[in-house]
Amino acid sequence: MFQPNENYLKLPGSYLFSTVARKQREYAEAHPDKKIIKLSIGDVTQPLCPAIIKALHDAVDEMASADTFKGYAPDLGYEFLRNAIAENDYKARGCDIAADEIFVADGAKSDSANIQEIFTQNTKIAVCDPVYPVYVDSNVMAGRTGTYDKETETWSDVIYMPCLKENNFAPELPKETPDLIYLCFPNNPTGSTITKSQLQEWVDYANKVGAVIIYDAAYEAYISEADVPHSIYECEGARTCAIELHSFSKNAGFTGVRLSYVVIPKEIKRDGVMLHSLWARRHGTKYNGAPYIIQKAGEAVYSAEGKAQLKEQVAYYMKNAAYIKNGLKEAGYDCSGGVNAPYIWLRTPNNMTSWEFFDYLLDKANVLGTPGSGFGPSGEHYFRLTAFGSYESTVEAINRIKAL
Amino acid sequence: MFQPNENYLKLPGSYLFSTVARKQREYAEAHPDKKIIKLSIGDVTQPLCPAIIKALHDAVDEMASADTFKGYAPDLGYEFLRNAIAENDYKARGCDIAADEIFVADGAKSDSANIQEIFTQNTKIAVCDPVYPVYVDSNVMAGRTGTYDKETETWSDVIYMPCLKENNFAPELPKETPDLIYLCFPNNPTGSTITKSQLQEWVDYANKVGAVIIYDAAYEAYISEADVPHSIYECEGARTCAIELHSFSKNAGFTGVRLSYVVIPKEIKRDGVMLHSLWARRHGTKYNGAPYIIQKAGEAVYSAEGKAQLKEQVAYYMKNAAYIKNGLKEAGYDCSGGVNAPYIWLRTPNNMTSWEFFDYLLDKANVLGTPGSGFGPSGEHYFRLTAFGSYESTVEAINRIKAL
Repeated sequence: MFQPNENYLKLPGSYLFSTVARKQREYAEAHPDKKIIKLSIGDVTQPLCPAIIKALHDAVDEMASADTFKGYAPDLGYEFLRNAIAENDYKARGCDIAADEIFVADGAKSDSANIQEIFTQNTKIAVCDPVYPVYVDSNVMAGRTGTYDKETETWSDVIYMPCLKENNFAPELPKETPDLIYLCFPNNPTGSTITKSQLQEWVDYANKVGAVIIYDAAYEAYISEADVPHSIYECEGARTCAIELHSFSKNAGFTGVRLSYVVIPKEIKRDGVMLHSLWARRHGTKYNGAPYIIQKAGEAVYSAEGKAQLKEQVAYYMKNAAYIKNGLKEAGYDCSGGVNAPYIWLRTPNNMTSWEFFDYLLDKANVLGTPGSGFGPSGEHYFRLTAFGSYESTVEAINRIKAL
Repeated sequence: MFQPNENYLKLPGSYLFSTVARKQREYAEAHPDKKIIKLSIGDVTQPLCPAIIKALHDAVDEMASADTFKGYAPDLGYEFLRNAIAENDYKARGCDIAADEIFVADGAKSDSANIQEIFTQNTKIAVCDPVYPVYVDSNVMAGRTGTYDKETETWSDVIYMPCLKENNFAPELPKETPDLIYLCFPNNPTGSTITKSQLQEWVDYANKVGAVIIYDAAYEAYISEADVPHSIYECEGARTCAIELHSFSKNAGFTGVRLSYVVIPKEIKRDGVMLHSLWARRHGTKYNGAPYIIQKAGEAVYSAEGKAQLKEQVAYYMKNAAYIKNGLKEAGYDCSGGVNAPYIWLRTPNNMTSWEFFDYLLDKANVLGTPGSGFGPSGEHYFRLTAFGSYESTVEAINRIKAL
């Protein structure tokens, strides 16, 4: 007699952004006259840049003719894309990553959720708090996190590393030793970063204790300051302990296009077993490659035209970020982020809970944000706004907030 | 200290088609003058039909403008596509499936590999033998299959249902009771089918013992005979026991485009828990939707033009299937399939093993096929050829085989 996976039933409530979307829908239905501005989910709004559009059309044309038609893609991604990634994201930065250590897939959300699968069941994970919910939830679904304490909103078998204003939103090395450490910089949700020397400490620590770091670099394109690392492989020793995740969603506007990659250096091993081989096996067995036309779009990201156009697109969003941050400061809010990341992280006023502030902002300013507590207990009393709206709507949203 | 998932290490050898591809590469490198014809992996060769090409171009254009740009897709798929599926694949056939019971994703390989996740750890699975390797391998990777016996090439905790010439390649109800039953008709690899009344027996059995059937209908478009069901929901009672998987790879040539859907009726429950909810949660947490432009291509599959053009495409491949089957019969081979499926399943001559025949065919005729033993122990001494080549290369391949 079949039984559902009981670990799924342990998950408290629905996925954060599904809840935000439901609340938005309900509010909109009840107030059809209100114009809601979404600064909640990190979803881009600018159209794909011309170089990418051209690559997509060209690739579609290839699919229309038998001589150029493409069926199943190579399991791990087309070489043209893996080579472009290795050359531009690594070699150009002095990082030693080979094209065959790069695995192309359909999104960093899937990758960050699936990566836990290649580790043994009783793997102890450490996460920042607040944190992108997928890291924790995917481990809950795998039965790896123990029991949930409703009071503290934490799992008994997860190591939480609080990121608060007091520590500049940078985690400290955990007291209990983890097997797997999730780090994301520039950070979602706080918009904070760490310096190269701070990241080096993490790499040294992971090598010392035999842990693996899952380094989520989804927001790398937004880095504006010189001492902030673009890749963990800028640090010495990262090849023996770090897996890096990259998204095309934020640097190239691919949230609805779907493309990502994972880097697993062949030097990460235990008793001669390479994690690289396990992930390759997972791709070969449980995945069938990203669409050819999407991989061609990914290649265009690295063309001269693509790079120039995307630099402008990132600048557009960062202008929004600056407007949000300055506006909130003028309005007396305590906020951070927005310099190397498209997220502004603010302290809720009057000690409101994150969800109270969510409802307040939705009701009074018709602005949708994301409650910090949805990212973990240390996110309580914080709130995230994203810079991914249009400039006009961002200005309007902030002006509405300032007028409250 | 991190440890790799030990279940991955239990997998014997690499994924079947990776091995076939490697052998091809090695042979081609050693014999650069030989023209190899691939009738191995079920990968299509005909270009996308004009209606789909147009939909792709139109959707790409939408992504080029801020007013029509699409970011994150709805978790479970766009309504336009789910409605088209519900209408055409179900309502038109008298099957009671609602649009919100349909989950759009990026491929039936991923879906068939991921679906086991929503069941509890000690789920007992039953599979046909031979079988599409992903069903078994994904359960091995989840640690659900016990120990592997190299002698018999079977897992201790898997129920195998032999499909041999003696039973017309149709499985019999298992003696031991499974929790989860994988069925695929028209069958990959044997090309066989079962009648609606035979399938009804399976549905009745699953309901009686409380099992779930994963019904893989990837090859449904190739059905030519009247009493062969296109969907398991044609059977009474399937809404309480059957999950159906569909691919766009074979009916619409999407192997390199990537699109699929899973149907989970809300009536499949245990103690009030709907499997539908668990899969929805998996989508929400571990997946971010299929690309908008690909979902628009999927919608075009159901347009009047799309349907007419794809009917021709399927007919093209089935002409190949008939040529292969007739040619092999003329050459004295014992073979089946090819009537409701694009696969021909043949008995190896002179009691050769499947891999011996693979090497023989590659070496003597430069034709690549798939060894039956790669699909399970009961596939030994069988061999699969696919009808997905071009007509010209298929004719040449069969003529070469006839000339041996």
